[in-house]
Amino acid sequence: MANHWIGVDLGGTKLLAGLFDDQFRVLARSKQNVDVKEGPEGVFRQIEACVTDLFQQSGVDAGTVRGLGIGIPGQVDPRIGQVRYAPNLEWHDVELARVFPASWSWPVHFENDVRLGTYGEFTHGAAKGAKHVLGLFVGTGVGGGIIMNGELYTGFNFNAGEIGHIILHWRRGSELESLAGRKYLMKRAKKLLEDAPKRIRKQWKDIDPPKMRSSEMAELFVKEDPIVTKLVDDAARALGAAIGSMVNFLNPEVIVIGGGVAGALGDPFLDRVWEIAQRYVLPGAADGVRCVPAALKDDSGIYGAAAYAKARTNGKNGR
Amino acid sequence: MANHWIGVDLGGTKLLAGLFDDQFRVLARSKQNVDVKEGPEGVFRQIEACVTDLFQQSGVDAGTVRGLGIGIPGQVDPRIGQVRYAPNLEWHDVELARVFPASWSWPVHFENDVRLGTYGEFTHGAAKGAKHVLGLFVGTGVGGGIIMNGELYTGFNFNAGEIGHIILHWRRGSELESLAGRKYLMKRAKKLLEDAPKRIRKQWKDIDPPKMRSSEMAELFVKEDPIVTKLVDDAARALGAAIGSMVNFLNPEVIVIGGGVAGALGDPFLDRVWEIAQRYVLPGAADGVRCVPAALKDDSGIYGAAAYAKARTNGKNGR
Repeated sequence: MANHWIGVDLGGTKLLAGLFDDQFRVLARSKQNVDVKEGPEGVFRQIEACVTDLFQQSGVDAGTVRGLGIGIPGQVDPRIGQVRYAPNLEWHDVELARVFPASWSWPVHFENDVRLGTYGEFTHGAAKGAKHVLGLFVGTGVGGGIIMNGELYTGFNFNAGEIGHIILHWRRGSELESLAGRKYLMKRAKKLLEDAPKRIRKQWKDIDPPKMRSSEMAELFVKEDPIVTKLVDDAARALGAAIGSMVNFLNPEVIVIGGGVAGALGDPFLDRVWEIAQRYVLPGAADGVRCVPAALKDDSGIYGAAAYAKARTNGKNGR
Repeated sequence: MANHWIGVDLGGTKLLAGLFDDQFRVLARSKQNVDVKEGPEGVFRQIEACVTDLFQQSGVDAGTVRGLGIGIPGQVDPRIGQVRYAPNLEWHDVELARVFPASWSWPVHFENDVRLGTYGEFTHGAAKGAKHVLGLFVGTGVGGGIIMNGELYTGFNFNAGEIGHIILHWRRGSELESLAGRKYLMKRAKKLLEDAPKRIRKQWKDIDPPKMRSSEMAELFVKEDPIVTKLVDDAARALGAAIGSMVNFLNPEVIVIGGGVAGALGDPFLDRVWEIAQRYVLPGAADGVRCVPAALKDDSGIYGAAAYAKARTNGKNGR
């Protein structure tokens, strides 16, 4: 009988589930908006509905599922099955096993969403075949994941990979995220606008920075808007410094860059980031190292979650 | 028959060798100044003499040695047995197997010296029993090592652990080493002296900053010399920012701090560094994490080299 695997990518606003066969072909996808108001139980009812939808779409029998993985946007302790803190979901110290749907008869594994996104790029995306991988996701915030010796590395407090929180200004304490995350870029945009000449303010009159999407930001970047140009240039410098640091210190084989901001700004942005990073690397440290865009786009999370469930169910990537 | 292990810590100026029994008691130590003029062959003749001295001191039979480890101050590729670059030894692309003494009948393993120092603290020093360790050695420069899941992590280009080369100022590109390594502190001392009041310059009149030793620096620090106070304060801030970053990103269980500068400045300095680091850590990321001084002092390198040789000879810590 065929084996099947399910990957769930749970975000603060959206939830994506995918059904995979044993060769990791996607057989079905299901998406929903997340309603956090009814707490963890409510969210898991939504996940259950998505999973049921996968079976209906594909005709796959639920009895062939060998494992399910869930990526959670927060700090997860998989040993004791607890989400310590997930700000976007408003979860504190949630014991996940208590809220699993009764209909689920397969092993369930969970991990941080960004770490699983990195894992997906490692098993089925842009970092396939590499042994040491650094994943960097630049969106509203900046997150990351570390693969070492072919295994997802979680750290002592299940915190590893939080590259958005490395310090890039030793006096001021500025973190990478505050220089490259969209949320912070837009805060700075608002400030820069206040002092901008009339001509520029006119162009921004219909834009509310906090609500600006990555695609809108990318459009203004192409139009050489001076505010966005400055912010993107700073973001590239900050990301370049962070990646250069990590080529020296962590010395990965592949650096995968994903997330909404990176995706919208595209290859010229990534080329610029890598060019800056290389200014900082030690002789030989970047030899053969690749810096590549994420290949699975919105699916890296579900691939990662399903692949992680498979690895864990088969006794791999153990702690 | 008893097993014995040898650890060699090769520096740019000094060479230390140690003989260990199977319980890792030190049976003998031998030290020499290193003369780099006669190239790798000459240096290995010196190492051979030190090793012979170990046998003479202890009466141990050379036939009971099961493995020898060497820490090399540079970039080492253990796969092909090559030192890519070791600036202090003036070595470029040296194939080590060609220069091993003919009298050595045991397996020889080599690695970067700072990584092996970290490994020594992990196996027999301040980080004993931990699974994930970050080693940080603050001396003339700043080096480091990473232990993950109980194994020494070397990275794709055998570069991992170079924490001295992470960027702490995203615009200027300042590296940690340039803010905390003695060589750079003393360069800055020279500059600060030029603009210092007469009273201060008088106190420094017998001191040549480039030749200042860590102990002399520590003495001036205790005397609250304003130049050293400023430099040490900056070094603590920079180290704190780097360690805070790494608690977030690498999330080790134990951070071991060693090296001449850290050792001379002692616990008050380390307390200050850890206090600053904690300002930057994410909620929960530092729970139960310890920041401790290196316990083996000058011996961390020989312990690490011998323990690494034992692990590799027994088929552990493989790549």
